[in-house]
Amino acid sequence: MRTRRAKDRSRLIQAAMGEIPCQLTIGNVQYFNVFTGEIYPAEVDILDGYVVRVREAGEQAPVPAEKRYDGGGNYLIPGFIDTHMHVESTMMIPENLSRAILPWGTTTICTDPHEIANVMGIDGVKFMLENAGRSALRQYALAPSCVPAVPGKESTGAAFTAKEIGELLDLEGVVGIAEVMDFVGVCQDSPRMHSIIDEGEKRDMYLQGHAPYVSGKELAAYRLGGPKSDHESVSAAEVREKLRCGIHVNLRASSLIDNLTDLVDGFRDHPWQDFVSICTDDVHAKDLLTTGHINRVVRKAVQAGLDGRAVVKMATLNAAREYHFDDLGAVAPGYVADIQLVEALDGSRPLAVFAAGRLVAENGVYLGGDRLDRPFDFPNTVNVPQLRSADDFRMRVPEGWQGDTIPVRVLVPQDMGRVLRTTKTVELPVRDGAVDLSGHPELLFVAVANRYGTGGKTIAVYESFGLERGALASTVSHDSHNLTVAYRDPDSAFLAAETLARCGGGVCAVNDGQAACLPLPVAGLMSQEPCGKLAEQIGQVQAAIGDISDGTVKLLETAILSLPVLPGTVVTDMGLVDGLSQTFVPVFDI
Amino acid sequence: MRTRRAKDRSRLIQAAMGEIPCQLTIGNVQYFNVFTGEIYPAEVDILDGYVVRVREAGEQAPVPAEKRYDGGGNYLIPGFIDTHMHVESTMMIPENLSRAILPWGTTTICTDPHEIANVMGIDGVKFMLENAGRSALRQYALAPSCVPAVPGKESTGAAFTAKEIGELLDLEGVVGIAEVMDFVGVCQDSPRMHSIIDEGEKRDMYLQGHAPYVSGKELAAYRLGGPKSDHESVSAAEVREKLRCGIHVNLRASSLIDNLTDLVDGFRDHPWQDFVSICTDDVHAKDLLTTGHINRVVRKAVQAGLDGRAVVKMATLNAAREYHFDDLGAVAPGYVADIQLVEALDGSRPLAVFAAGRLVAENGVYLGGDRLDRPFDFPNTVNVPQLRSADDFRMRVPEGWQGDTIPVRVLVPQDMGRVLRTTKTVELPVRDGAVDLSGHPELLFVAVANRYGTGGKTIAVYESFGLERGALASTVSHDSHNLTVAYRDPDSAFLAAETLARCGGGVCAVNDGQAACLPLPVAGLMSQEPCGKLAEQIGQVQAAIGDISDGTVKLLETAILSLPVLPGTVVTDMGLVDGLSQTFVPVFDI
Repeated sequence: MRTRRAKDRSRLIQAAMGEIPCQLTIGNVQYFNVFTGEIYPAEVDILDGYVVRVREAGEQAPVPAEKRYDGGGNYLIPGFIDTHMHVESTMMIPENLSRAILPWGTTTICTDPHEIANVMGIDGVKFMLENAGRSALRQYALAPSCVPAVPGKESTGAAFTAKEIGELLDLEGVVGIAEVMDFVGVCQDSPRMHSIIDEGEKRDMYLQGHAPYVSGKELAAYRLGGPKSDHESVSAAEVREKLRCGIHVNLRASSLIDNLTDLVDGFRDHPWQDFVSICTDDVHAKDLLTTGHINRVVRKAVQAGLDGRAVVKMATLNAAREYHFDDLGAVAPGYVADIQLVEALDGSRPLAVFAAGRLVAENGVYLGGDRLDRPFDFPNTVNVPQLRSADDFRMRVPEGWQGDTIPVRVLVPQDMGRVLRTTKTVELPVRDGAVDLSGHPELLFVAVANRYGTGGKTIAVYESFGLERGALASTVSHDSHNLTVAYRDPDSAFLAAETLARCGGGVCAVNDGQAACLPLPVAGLMSQEPCGKLAEQIGQVQAAIGDISDGTVKLLETAILSLPVLPGTVVTDMGLVDGLSQTFVPVFDI
Repeated sequence: MRTRRAKDRSRLIQAAMGEIPCQLTIGNVQYFNVFTGEIYPAEVDILDGYVVRVREAGEQAPVPAEKRYDGGGNYLIPGFIDTHMHVESTMMIPENLSRAILPWGTTTICTDPHEIANVMGIDGVKFMLENAGRSALRQYALAPSCVPAVPGKESTGAAFTAKEIGELLDLEGVVGIAEVMDFVGVCQDSPRMHSIIDEGEKRDMYLQGHAPYVSGKELAAYRLGGPKSDHESVSAAEVREKLRCGIHVNLRASSLIDNLTDLVDGFRDHPWQDFVSICTDDVHAKDLLTTGHINRVVRKAVQAGLDGRAVVKMATLNAAREYHFDDLGAVAPGYVADIQLVEALDGSRPLAVFAAGRLVAENGVYLGGDRLDRPFDFPNTVNVPQLRSADDFRMRVPEGWQGDTIPVRVLVPQDMGRVLRTTKTVELPVRDGAVDLSGHPELLFVAVANRYGTGGKTIAVYESFGLERGALASTVSHDSHNLTVAYRDPDSAFLAAETLARCGGGVCAVNDGQAACLPLPVAGLMSQEPCGKLAEQIGQVQAAIGDISDGTVKLLETAILSLPVLPGTVVTDMGLVDGLSQTFVPVFDI
C-alpha cells in the first residue's frame, strides 16, 4: 500500500537527475540505514515531501537544493510509527495530538477511534479523520471492530455491523480493521465477527488483533480467523508463542500497562525480529508532556537491553512493513520524508523532526504554534433526560417493597486493584422508598445513565471505592461512554451530572457544592485545549478528587466500572452484568 | 495480498479448535521457524491446503488428523519461492515445469512471460496462466513491461502499451509488472514507461526492476520511477548500493550468469538481510534435471558462507514479503501448506515436498507422473512467407550495383564473449548479384526473418561466429523471437528454416542436407516434452551443432544476435541496429 497517492513521479525523477533543484538537503549527519543496519555519513535530498536521494559522503548533488539544514553531526533516522493507539485516551483532538507528539519524533500513528465510534458512530470516525487531516502528523484510522463491545448488555451511541465496517473501510485514511477484541467470537467463529472480518479480507486490508492470554489451539484459531497482530501479551512466553505463530507483536508501553521489560525476553535471543513493532495504546497528556510517545517505548526497550538499531527498526521499517506501507518507515528514494535527528539511538528527545520534508519541531518545541487557530463548535453529545433532579440519583426500592431493609448485591473488589469485582449481598436500610447508605461509610452509589437519549439508568452499590464524600462523574466510561457517577449523596451527584451535561461531558469532582470540572466537550471524550493546558486542567481535577477521597481514586476511576468485557461484575446503563457469563444480575437480591 | 481467496476460514477455525479433524499431520520433524530463526521439534496440522497449527513437542492435537506423515527427524521448512524467472527459458510449458521443479522444493514462482508475450501478446500470457493452472506449482505471472524491448527497431508479434498492461494486471494470477528493463526510459521519464508504470501504481501492485550497472543519481531516479527490486547486479558494491537504496535484491544464479559468490559480499556483514530474496531468471532443462532450481541458488549462497537459516528465509519469507504474499513463505496457521522436508538447511534435494498440503514429490521423484496426460494442439506461430526458397537466403546487392565487390558492414566481436559486436567495413566479392563468402571462411551470413507475417528480413555478415558449415536456425531469438539463421550456404539455411516453419519453431542444425531439430512448437519457444526427454533432445541438437562448428557454438547462439537492448550492433528483421544510439545502420557501406 502506498500511503500518499498525489506523488508527482516526474518531478522527483527530474530532481534526482538534477534537472530541477530539490527543496531541502539535510546534511552533516550520521545516516542510519534501516534496510542494512549500517550507519554512515550522508546527505538527504528532499522534494515535495519525498526523499529524492541519500548521497553518501563525498557525492555531490547534481544541483544544490534550495535550502540546507545542518544536522550537526547527529544521527538521522526515520520518523516513528505507532502501530496501535487510541487518540481519545490522550483526551486531545487529533490536531492537538499532532502538536504534542511530533516533537517526540512520532510522524505516523495508526489509530483505533473505538471510543468516539461508540459515542457517535461513523460520524465520529469521520470527525477524527477530518480533524487529523489538518495536522502534520500522519494519522491513519482503523475501523473499530467491536462497537458495542458486548451487544445487548449496554446501550451505546452506535452499533457497527459488517455494513458499517465496510463503509468505514472505504473511507480515505482508513487502513484496516482495529483490534479485534472479541477473540472468543473469532475462535468460536461467531457470525458477527466473521462477517466483520470478511469486510477486511475482501479488501485485502490490515486486520489488527487483540488477544491477551490467548494460546495454543485458541491462538491458532484466532490467527486463522484473520487478525495478524497483537499488543496484549502479558509475558515473555506469550510473546514468544505469538511470534512463533507468525503474529506481529506490537510491543506496548502505555500509561496504564508497562510490562515491556518482561516482554522483550520473548525474542531477545532471536536472530531476526522483523515481526516486532512498537505501540503506545493509551497514553495520557501528562505522560506525553514529560516522557514522550513512541520514543518513550524505544527508550524502555533499549534500557531492557535491546540494541538501539534493532529497536529503531521496530519503530519504523518493521511497523511500515506490517501495514504494507511501502513508502513509510525508511529514509530512501521514494519514501515520505519523515525524519528525525537524534543524538543517540536510544529514544532520547529528537533535536529536529521533519514531517513530509517539513521541519515541524526542534528541541521539543512544535514549530506550528501550540494552540488551535480557531476552536470549533462541537455538538453536545450528553443527552440525559432521565436526570432532572437530585431525586433521580436516589436508589429506589422496587414498588410495593415493605421492609425496613432490603438485600442489595454490593460490588466488592475481587482483586487488589479494585478493577475486577464480584457481588455479595448486603441487607441495607430503606428510607423514604430508597436505599440509605448513611450508616455505611464503606459503601457508595454508582449510577450509570445512558447519555444517548434512551433514558436508561442503573444505580448500584459499591464497597471499597475510596471516595469519602461528594461525587465523581465522567462521560469517559469504557466502552459505551455513558455518564457514570460515583457518589455518597444525590445532591453532589446531580451537580456533577448537570455540570457535565451542560459542558458536553468530561470529568467532574464535586465537593461541598463546588464542582471542579475537566471539560471534554468533543464527544464527551476530548478537549480542544493543547497538551500543556490540558495536563494542567487534569492536575486541578486530580487535586479535587484527592480532597474527596482517600487518595487512591484516579482521574478515570469511574471510567472502568462499565466494561462488560471484564471477567467480573460491572454496571451498565441496562443493569448489573456478570462479564464472565454475559448475563444480567438483578441489583436487589429478592 | 492474500494469494488464494477460496479459503474457508470457518473450517480452519473448527479444525484448530478440534471440532473437525485435520487431513494431515506431518510429525517427527525439526521445525525451522522463519519468523524467529528457531529450530525445534514440532508437528504440523493441515486442512484444505492450509496450515492449521504447528504444535510443539508434547502438545497433542485436539483430535488426530486423518493421515500422518513421518518426517523422519528431518528439517521442515517452507517451500521455496522464485522471485523472478522466465518459464520460456526452460523450454518447458508451465505444467511440465511444475513436474520438474516441485521435486526440488520450489512451490511458487513469479514469472515474466516476456518471451511468449513478444510472440503472441496477451493470448500468450493467458495461455501460460491457463496451463500453469493445471499444475501443483503456484505460478504467478507479471505483466511484461517492455514488449517490444525497443519499439520501431524490431517487429514482434505484439506491442504492449499501458492499455494492454492494464488489461494483463486485471487478470487472475497476474501480481505485478515484470522487470522494467527500460531503465533509461524510467530515468528519463519516458511517456511510454511512465504510463505503463502508472497502471501498476494505481492498482498498488508489485513493480519489478531490472537495473544492471545503474548507480548514483540514476539509481535514485529509477527507484523513484517505480521499480522496487533488481536481480541484475554485477558486483558486491552494486548489491550494497541497491540495498542501501531500499531496493529488494533478488539474488540470482541462472544458467547464463552466476556471480552469486561475489554478490553476497554486498550484504554479508549486515545485521539484517530482509530485502534479499532469491531467483533463477533463466534456467535450462539440463540444469534443472541435474542441479535443481531455487535450491541450487540456496546451495551456492550457503557455499559462499552465508548461514543456512538466513538463506532459507531469503528463499521463503523474504520473497513472500517482497510481494506482499501474506499467506506464503512460512509454515504457520493460515499459511498455505507449501512444505519441504530436508536433511540440512543447505539447498540439498528435499526428501519430500508438499504443495498446498498435498505430497507432490519424494526423493526427487514427482508423484503425479512425469508426462502430460494429453498433449494439446497449439497454433503454428512461424509465419515466414518471405522464405520460399534457398534463393531468399542470398544476400543481394542493391539494384543497379555494378562492382565486382561491395563494401559490407561486417559484425565483429567487441569482447571476448562474442555477444557484444561492432562493425567494420569489408570489401566482399559479388557473384550473380549477391555477396559471396566462399573465399572468406571466417565469415558467415545471419538472416533474421520476421515470423509474424510482415515479410521483413535482414541478411548480415558476421565474423568469428564459430560455425564452420551448414546452418543453425532458431525461433528462440530474444526478444522478438523472429526466425534467426546463421549459415554458410543458402541451401542449408533454407532447409533449417523450412524445418522450423513446418514444426512450429525450435532450434535446428543442418549438416550436409540433414536437419537435427529440437521442436519447440509452443510459440516457437517451448516443448510439450517433459524435462528429461527435452534435455535428451537438446543434447542431440547440441551434438549436431558440435559437428558443424568449432566447438564454441552454443544451442542458443543464434538467440542473442537480435537484441537491440544490447549496447552493440545487432541485426533485427528491420535492419542493422546500433544498440547504443538506437539507430539503424545500413548493411552496405555505400
